[in-house]
Amino acid sequence: MSISVFQDPLLSGLFGDPDVAAAFAAARTVERYNQVEIALTRGAEASGLVPKAAADAICAMLADFTPDMAALAAGTMKDGLPLPAYAAAIKAAAGDNARYVHLGSTSQDIMDTALALTLVEINNIFDARLVEIVARLQTLAKAHGRRVIMGRTRMQAALSITVADRIREWQLPLERQRDRLVRLRPRIEIVQFGGPVGTRRGWNGNGDAIATHMAGTLGLSDPGASWHTARDGLGVYAGWLAQISAALGKIGEDVALMAQQGIGEIRLAGGGGSSAMAHKKNPIDGELLVTLARFNAAQLGGFAQSLMHEQERSGASWALEWMILPQMCAACGASLLTATRLLSAIEQMGASEGTILDGAT
Amino acid sequence: MSISVFQDPLLSGLFGDPDVAAAFAAARTVERYNQVEIALTRGAEASGLVPKAAADAICAMLADFTPDMAALAAGTMKDGLPLPAYAAAIKAAAGDNARYVHLGSTSQDIMDTALALTLVEINNIFDARLVEIVARLQTLAKAHGRRVIMGRTRMQAALSITVADRIREWQLPLERQRDRLVRLRPRIEIVQFGGPVGTRRGWNGNGDAIATHMAGTLGLSDPGASWHTARDGLGVYAGWLAQISAALGKIGEDVALMAQQGIGEIRLAGGGGSSAMAHKKNPIDGELLVTLARFNAAQLGGFAQSLMHEQERSGASWALEWMILPQMCAACGASLLTATRLLSAIEQMGASEGTILDGAT
Amino acid sequence: MSISVFQDPLLSGLFGDPDVAAAFAAARTVERYNQVEIALTRGAEASGLVPKAAADAICAMLADFTPDMAALAAGTMKDGLPLPAYAAAIKAAAGDNARYVHLGSTSQDIMDTALALTLVEINNIFDARLVEIVARLQTLAKAHGRRVIMGRTRMQAALSITVADRIREWQLPLERQRDRLVRLRPRIEIVQFGGPVGTRRGWNGNGDAIATHMAGTLGLSDPGASWHTARDGLGVYAGWLAQISAALGKIGEDVALMAQQGIGEIRLAGGGGSSAMAHKKNPIDGELLVTLARFNAAQLGGFAQSLMHEQERSGASWALEWMILPQMCAACGASLLTATRLLSAIEQMGASEGTILDGAT
Amino acid sequence: MSISVFQDPLLSGLFGDPDVAAAFAAARTVERYNQVEIALTRGAEASGLVPKAAADAICAMLADFTPDMAALAAGTMKDGLPLPAYAAAIKAAAGDNARYVHLGSTSQDIMDTALALTLVEINNIFDARLVEIVARLQTLAKAHGRRVIMGRTRMQAALSITVADRIREWQLPLERQRDRLVRLRPRIEIVQFGGPVGTRRGWNGNGDAIATHMAGTLGLSDPGASWHTARDGLGVYAGWLAQISAALGKIGEDVALMAQQGIGEIRLAGGGGSSAMAHKKNPIDGELLVTLARFNAAQLGGFAQSLMHEQERSGASWALEWMILPQMCAACGASLLTATRLLSAIEQMGASEGTILDGAT
Repeated sequence: MSISVFQDPLLSGLFGDPDVAAAFAAARTVERYNQVEIALTRGAEASGLVPKAAADAICAMLADFTPDMAALAAGTMKDGLPLPAYAAAIKAAAGDNARYVHLGSTSQDIMDTALALTLVEINNIFDARLVEIVARLQTLAKAHGRRVIMGRTRMQAALSITVADRIREWQLPLERQRDRLVRLRPRIEIVQFGGPVGTRRGWNGNGDAIATHMAGTLGLSDPGASWHTARDGLGVYAGWLAQISAALGKIGEDVALMAQQGIGEIRLAGGGGSSAMAHKKNPIDGELLVTLARFNAAQLGGFAQSLMHEQERSGASWALEWMILPQMCAACGASLLTATRLLSAIEQMGASEGTILDGAT
Repeated sequence: MSISVFQDPLLSGLFGDPDVAAAFAAARTVERYNQVEIALTRGAEASGLVPKAAADAICAMLADFTPDMAALAAGTMKDGLPLPAYAAAIKAAAGDNARYVHLGSTSQDIMDTALALTLVEINNIFDARLVEIVARLQTLAKAHGRRVIMGRTRMQAALSITVADRIREWQLPLERQRDRLVRLRPRIEIVQFGGPVGTRRGWNGNGDAIATHMAGTLGLSDPGASWHTARDGLGVYAGWLAQISAALGKIGEDVALMAQQGIGEIRLAGGGGSSAMAHKKNPIDGELLVTLARFNAAQLGGFAQSLMHEQERSGASWALEWMILPQMCAACGASLLTATRLLSAIEQMGASEGTILDGAT
Repeated sequence: MSISVFQDPLLSGLFGDPDVAAAFAAARTVERYNQVEIALTRGAEASGLVPKAAADAICAMLADFTPDMAALAAGTMKDGLPLPAYAAAIKAAAGDNARYVHLGSTSQDIMDTALALTLVEINNIFDARLVEIVARLQTLAKAHGRRVIMGRTRMQAALSITVADRIREWQLPLERQRDRLVRLRPRIEIVQFGGPVGTRRGWNGNGDAIATHMAGTLGLSDPGASWHTARDGLGVYAGWLAQISAALGKIGEDVALMAQQGIGEIRLAGGGGSSAMAHKKNPIDGELLVTLARFNAAQLGGFAQSLMHEQERSGASWALEWMILPQMCAACGASLLTATRLLSAIEQMGASEGTILDGAT
Repeated sequence: MSISVFQDPLLSGLFGDPDVAAAFAAARTVERYNQVEIALTRGAEASGLVPKAAADAICAMLADFTPDMAALAAGTMKDGLPLPAYAAAIKAAAGDNARYVHLGSTSQDIMDTALALTLVEINNIFDARLVEIVARLQTLAKAHGRRVIMGRTRMQAALSITVADRIREWQLPLERQRDRLVRLRPRIEIVQFGGPVGTRRGWNGNGDAIATHMAGTLGLSDPGASWHTARDGLGVYAGWLAQISAALGKIGEDVALMAQQGIGEIRLAGGGGSSAMAHKKNPIDGELLVTLARFNAAQLGGFAQSLMHEQERSGASWALEWMILPQMCAACGASLLTATRLLSAIEQMGASEGTILDGAT
């Protein structure tokens, strides 16, 4: 056990998601700061606030700037966030052009935009995994869909259904969440730009123009105003992450119930071993999906507590986001990886092919 | 104090929302059951499963059917939900037509569809209130927008901004949530229809046709399949309720901070009295908005725990929804009422009209 | 469905607890205000701050004072809490002795002490129910304890155990929670007394003496200082409520799993009916215990968000307590009632009497 | 930003706690597995189940056993937990004595006991920090206690109090939590011992004796039965962690409010810088304490969802503990470190020495 199951040498095979971990890695985050500062410099250049030569020099420097991470860590302790020390470092590295660096921006402009870039990467990964999982469900439905299983309601046998019926219940919410992601992405893959008090009023009236230019450079949208305190987009996204984990958690819970001796409606390859009982085959991936769903449900409640940001910028609520959102991405990523693994381990669902009677009365 | 602040004789003036309370009242809920059963009967008639005369008789009976609420309460204790006793009661009332009543449906079909009808009503109310609040914010911006206040970040004075700047930060998330509601409504204002195990396979192959017919009758959409276990729409809606409370909670928190002696950036009419100190004017509506936001944030975490519904229908997760969702609606409604009251009490924001300098670097 | 399942005509048979509802009823709360004001008056009299004749007159008036509830509700809306209007009402009723009424106290002194009195009543009820449940478990163990059931770990059959083994796992945490309650009671059954800013500095130096006297009158303890912002006792109590619901939720979950067709390790009398399938016997009390456990777990997270009370008294955090704590008591009460019902419905556990082998290696 | 702020190169200076990180490190965890297996071997030897020579050889091997961490990680992925692979590894290392290794135990026996040992270390650290913080509060009260500040209730000026008054409100809950820890430790610093289905029935009737012996070896208590599914002790402990964070969060919130320009009731050394505004001194440690309190409050709600463990052992609920409890320890540790830093940065509280009038009416 370790503080974070996502970063533990032993447990991260189970709970971890290497792609999400890479996307949130500190070095990668700093690279994104560089990217955002480059976009800012080019935006300011386009508005005539930075001479081309200075912009070129700054961007060349930023293209492979690697800060002294220990100095950044020390600055983070002092300032409560890494950006002031980072901004000082790139200004120092810019030499005579220092006055054109990080022009008019505030820490949150850079860090939130960097987060948006991280989420672009995460969303690409998760979208592909969702496609893959839906495809696996379709394959399973094709292979076993006509077999009969007992439909169960309130934990009791009700009427017979087909395996295809149950798989459809697993699949539909995932498809809807995938549709939601498409609509959601433009709301969170956005540039943050506002300056010290979020008004976009600096930059000689060029705030909006620079924001739009930056968005173009970075492949993001410009929401038209800063969102230093308006975290609604991230709140919706956190909800989406929890919904994916829940939809996959339902699959896991159903599988664990189907795998019970005496029920026996599923046959899985592999399965976890026991240190005491060699005969056991634990449906560990099913359980893990339940765990991850409950974890992300709890984190969603925590994230919702961070939605109120007082005045023009909140330190306390913002830092609460940092503590929770990356974990929600990691847990969602783990849900997707685990579900893929679990579905590919299904060797049979249902007992026998049969006819479903025309049920209810 | 009482178990529910929403239904307490003393506290419901503060926390309550009479419109939401009316929408969720037990008698009203039963009326909606009647409505849904009428729609079902007409749908089954349209599919030729119920003769016109029987349908007419059943619908006439249902139009003003009032069950013995004590018998329903007793049935609820026995069955875990009110519907079986209700269904038995309308069958009894239908006399010879009993066999055409509640045809092929399951309790959750009726109760979830009734909930959807309740949410239609709630959404109409909340939408109107949001429009009203945005209008009030615009009025405030017009009246006081050019005055100067100190922009504050991380609880510290930063740079001067205008009152209009801060009001815009309050307004934008509310406008976005209103847009979201428009897109959200078709996803939750939907008919539930699936039969005992959710397959729509009964009704001689007319399940989909009946569902579509019912949706038309009731002013709902037909999602094309049952959603007995797929609660993603409700999950998104719970998130929306929490976001409204949070966006209004931010206003409340800002007002409470502005109203501090020594800060003095707002002047409010009224304000709460103290049993000990006659001189005090407590910004109680500001505080209440914070309370409601934190309440709904916590409930969102609880609702998310209800998202996994095992197998074909879950009793445990469904009942958890009943415990939480109506409260979230009530708290959201209270947030909207409180915000309206608070905004209308603002007599002045900011200290003096002035020029905002072209800010930071 | 209604805003609060605890107060709904149909659902309160399932979720409600008449004893808890009575303890938190508004009229009862006002009676407790009367009790606390009587104790305050007697305490102030004992310290020589109120003449005996005035104290006698005030206490006689308070003994059956019934305020105009509508006026109190109106005051609550204005002041954010009922106490200022209540204090004004009893002062008015005291006529010439008004200046001796509510002497030096603040609203929170009265309301928190009234809450403590409510919790005394709740704790008496819950303690008796716990004793009853443990007795029922012992009876079950005596009747069925030697029968064999399959021990299951990670949702899979492991090794045979006895029914007594499983019942002991149900019983031990309940016994420990009962022991905890004994130790916990003196920490929460306490008088709140501090005056407007919590210092106990008014009353001519008699603050501590009055608090101790009040505690004696009311059967509470005096913690030696006000706890206007120090809600740790209530936080521990909320945890206790959630633990009771969780310990009983585990019983419910196990019962629902044992009752599955194909497992068949328990036989229950009664059981919920279905509106669609007459043959079903749903283990609704088992499910309900799970629901209540998850509800109280979520509320505990919400209550924990109310633990920080800023400065000398917080309106926002205090009101969040009002929204959550009574519900947690109600849900805990419902857990206890439901568990009693469920355990008394168990007709058989386990399949056959047998010998448990000396287990694993 | 990184998945875990506790383990991020940049942010862990702010959020991290090196001592807690060390206590939960994977390598350290494995050392504790070794310790527990040694204690088990000695216990079994004392009961005559393992010959002395074999026990000596096994313990000598375990004393510095270092497993192949990659193999353990692979086993964890397969089995859902590291113990089966670890048990296989030590059996392999024990050669001919393999049959005496991990005798009759289940994974949870070893892992939970190892966790208890970790918590012993954590508790020692936290207890010392609490003592240090209380001492600092006393020093502050001595230095500034007689100065006057405005007592504030519901975010409004009420009556003057002394700095000592406010510090006492900060101090009392911390002292109570320290007392609680003393009583709590024997409930969580306990050996886990039950065997595959938790009955202690293996070991030729020596289960209890071995458990008691193990407890003695490890400096733990023997609760007299396994607690595979009875997580009430951990639940109480999670509540304690959240209460510490909340009590310190209140200090942070008060400091951030006192540090506002216009209020100016505190003077802090240092303070965070801004990337945009050189003049700002952000009270970042005050904000951080609020963040950590809200984080742990949310996690407590999540932990409470893990309290129900079905049947004889739950995979899903147990893994949820692993995800949450170490983080709660880390956040609590960070609260304690941050509070120490913040309190030591206070240069002055209150404005001037003065007389507090005898307040309320």
